[in-house]
Amino acid sequence: MAKKKKTQKPKARLVRGFNDRSSADIRSTDEMMGKIKAVYELYGFDPIETPFLEYTDALGKFLPDSDRPNEGVFSLQDEDEQWLSLRYDLTAPLARHVAQNINEITMPYRTYRAGWVFRNEKPGPGRFRQFMQFDADIVGAPSVSADAEMCMMMADTMEALGIKRGDYVIRVNNRKVLDGVLEAIGVTDEGQKLSVLRAIDKLDKFGDEGVRLLLGEGRKDESGDFTKGAGLNEEQIEDLDRLIYFSTTLDGDGRPQTNVQRVESISGICRSAIYQSGIEELLSIAKLFEAAGYSSDRIKIDPSCVRGLEYYTGMVYEAELTFDVTNEKGVKVQFGSVGGGGRYDGLIKRFTGQAVPATGFSIGVSRLMSALKNLDRLEKSEMPAPIIVCVMDKSRIADYQKMVMELRDAGIRAEMYQGNPKNFGKQLQYADRRNSPAAIIAGSDEFDAGMIQIKDLIVGKEASKNIKDNETWKEERPGQFECKRSDLVKKISGLPVIKAWLEK
Amino acid sequence: MAKKKKTQKPKARLVRGFNDRSSADIRSTDEMMGKIKAVYELYGFDPIETPFLEYTDALGKFLPDSDRPNEGVFSLQDEDEQWLSLRYDLTAPLARHVAQNINEITMPYRTYRAGWVFRNEKPGPGRFRQFMQFDADIVGAPSVSADAEMCMMMADTMEALGIKRGDYVIRVNNRKVLDGVLEAIGVTDEGQKLSVLRAIDKLDKFGDEGVRLLLGEGRKDESGDFTKGAGLNEEQIEDLDRLIYFSTTLDGDGRPQTNVQRVESISGICRSAIYQSGIEELLSIAKLFEAAGYSSDRIKIDPSCVRGLEYYTGMVYEAELTFDVTNEKGVKVQFGSVGGGGRYDGLIKRFTGQAVPATGFSIGVSRLMSALKNLDRLEKSEMPAPIIVCVMDKSRIADYQKMVMELRDAGIRAEMYQGNPKNFGKQLQYADRRNSPAAIIAGSDEFDAGMIQIKDLIVGKEASKNIKDNETWKEERPGQFECKRSDLVKKISGLPVIKAWLEK
Repeated sequence: MAKKKKTQKPKARLVRGFNDRSSADIRSTDEMMGKIKAVYELYGFDPIETPFLEYTDALGKFLPDSDRPNEGVFSLQDEDEQWLSLRYDLTAPLARHVAQNINEITMPYRTYRAGWVFRNEKPGPGRFRQFMQFDADIVGAPSVSADAEMCMMMADTMEALGIKRGDYVIRVNNRKVLDGVLEAIGVTDEGQKLSVLRAIDKLDKFGDEGVRLLLGEGRKDESGDFTKGAGLNEEQIEDLDRLIYFSTTLDGDGRPQTNVQRVESISGICRSAIYQSGIEELLSIAKLFEAAGYSSDRIKIDPSCVRGLEYYTGMVYEAELTFDVTNEKGVKVQFGSVGGGGRYDGLIKRFTGQAVPATGFSIGVSRLMSALKNLDRLEKSEMPAPIIVCVMDKSRIADYQKMVMELRDAGIRAEMYQGNPKNFGKQLQYADRRNSPAAIIAGSDEFDAGMIQIKDLIVGKEASKNIKDNETWKEERPGQFECKRSDLVKKISGLPVIKAWLEK
Repeated sequence: MAKKKKTQKPKARLVRGFNDRSSADIRSTDEMMGKIKAVYELYGFDPIETPFLEYTDALGKFLPDSDRPNEGVFSLQDEDEQWLSLRYDLTAPLARHVAQNINEITMPYRTYRAGWVFRNEKPGPGRFRQFMQFDADIVGAPSVSADAEMCMMMADTMEALGIKRGDYVIRVNNRKVLDGVLEAIGVTDEGQKLSVLRAIDKLDKFGDEGVRLLLGEGRKDESGDFTKGAGLNEEQIEDLDRLIYFSTTLDGDGRPQTNVQRVESISGICRSAIYQSGIEELLSIAKLFEAAGYSSDRIKIDPSCVRGLEYYTGMVYEAELTFDVTNEKGVKVQFGSVGGGGRYDGLIKRFTGQAVPATGFSIGVSRLMSALKNLDRLEKSEMPAPIIVCVMDKSRIADYQKMVMELRDAGIRAEMYQGNPKNFGKQLQYADRRNSPAAIIAGSDEFDAGMIQIKDLIVGKEASKNIKDNETWKEERPGQFECKRSDLVKKISGLPVIKAWLEK
């Protein structure tokens, strides 16, 4: 019978939905972000950053999936009892920043920012409570040409990351088109409109049937959880169908292929002024895409693209990856959205009372990372692991340290083994686990002779595949060779991985 | 009499102690961080990152300046009522990470991480509640040679940033030395020991007299706030003095200059075993510094260096900038500490029950940035602002867009003016405020003739210093020239700033 230990030791554990990041993940993310940044900068955008905590009322509540108050965000009270929240996206803080500095900012204001955002939601597989977004926005740009530029920049970003044409598409729509139809079928309540939006936004997730349920009474998922629907009646749903499902049949043989044709084909669905104004804007943007050489295989006008956020006032756009992946249930599905945005002319007005036109998008960095992994487009860092200088004789620490310093001075990553040096096998095991290209071995014999042993661990690993016999191994010591102490840097610089790195 | 407006508009404001970051700040910080990272990587360190929120009990309370519970950190309760806190440093989360993954991690574990940390403290000038640290640690390294390596890495980091020898010094001490003296004078209570530490740590801030007050009854600052002292009696303070003030007189004519001599000169102050063990470690590290060529003008053994954190168990070290700056009161003072660290063999034990030796330091990124600003070592980004293509004719948007695309394809930052194009003056003003190297001007005349106007804004600005007369200006249009539309990219690539950038 085990006795219960009385212990007050805290448990070392991550908070649910939060993760540590590995070196490999950090390095490939940095590489990816660097490429995205280069595209944004070519387009004339400059970085700005806002803090992680904001006054809760300044952030507002614009989360797509949380209708209950206080849900979705991490909040706490400051000493003066004002509520603070961790930012849940990078758009709300940008609106605060612009409103606060409206007199100093030169408009149009092209900015980008990458940063961690936080959602106080139930974590799940692939669903984290801290994740990174990479946004770009133009504030003070009223015209459709600014929206067009954002869409083209998203397309260019996908290609800069090595995502081939055909593997991605930027879907574009205009909220006014949907607003027009909703007005025509008598949906005027803002809450109901939002529910309709979010139902349509789930098209790729739940399919036609699921969306119909969400537009009507509601939908029960596999776990039995019931999501209340938008409460439209059958007739209203049918009318909406004409727009949404029409768009899903736009592709295919004999169907209109250019964006201009696509817009023209839906122009007669509804006669309301707001609908027609949306159609007009879509026509303008379609023409801009055409003139700039972005055809509908890259940027596609698609009336079923709505985006789940309520604050969009005009164009909405979404970057979708169209290649198949196998989901957790073993079913092949399209990879789906990796980011999107739209025009939000009213968000800064919340503070200032004056409309400030703005358009921008957000890329989900982790989603995009996992897409690139799927496409095998994630570049592995070519930085070699450090050379390990083994400690064979504790009285020679200063000499080992000197070897390390010489290597570093030559631009080669290197370290002396800093664990307990007693067990030499452990030192080599360490070098091996770190993927070190080579270990340096020097005991008193070598010091007396002015020599060192270099163990080329890459050659050694290769050779070990063929040598099964322990005795042969010890005799041949594949990859291990002796050289003069004074040739240390020369010999290490000559190792293929090191040479390649130094020549970069 | 102004009527009170009834408004429910939120106020656009930053939370006290938090800041937005400008492009210039982000770019120079990134540049600085890149240089620091390169040094850490040469030393064999790899990045890892932990999340922003941790369970409060896992972080523990190790803040130097907050003795009251719940002070110093931002905390909130999760749905399951467990307390979460925003990380207040990067060491406590590293300890959690190592403890949680102790069986998978290859020791010695050399890692670095840069990240924002949060302190729920009263903000003040230059004192923010969100700031960035850049840490490096070796976990699983029991020996003094690991501490030595950290100190040398700090020195190398300072030099990589362009801080000259003489403008910085890494101060090194060993906690056991102070522990030995405290034991000898009868201070055994942990709380009292911590108060003594923190008092001595304030030496550069409050001077000898201030520290004496803090060691005794306490000290009243200029605002009248009273800080309770460590409660030592006169005799105890005198005994401590022998160590601390001895160290402040170590420099100067005829005084021992090498680190080994410096240690030897204080070896007789106290006979306790713990003191002598500290002296032995200091001697070893002094010899390592000497062998590696780091003399006491770069790394200096200094018994008055204690660091304010309670968890250090052996060596402590601090990077101090020694050049003078003028403080907010107009007084010349040494710039002071930009980071430091030490050995914390017990921090992981909190979780695992087993001692895991570790040593590491943290650099205060904003402090270091402002130091580099003072030294004029902050590199300004050489990235040119975008070329602005003006919109002279709204029906030609697609043509302007095409110019922009051609420039971008050539690797030149460019944008079409996306504000309201009515007022041409505003477009040029925009280009000017963005520091754009050139604006492209093309109206229907130019389009008809297949020409464009290029306004070289750098030449123009230079010329405007000499031309005072409006008429002359209009006639000469300095910096403005016409060229063929087809020469757009060629001409822009030839502008000196663009040429320099493209050749990088």
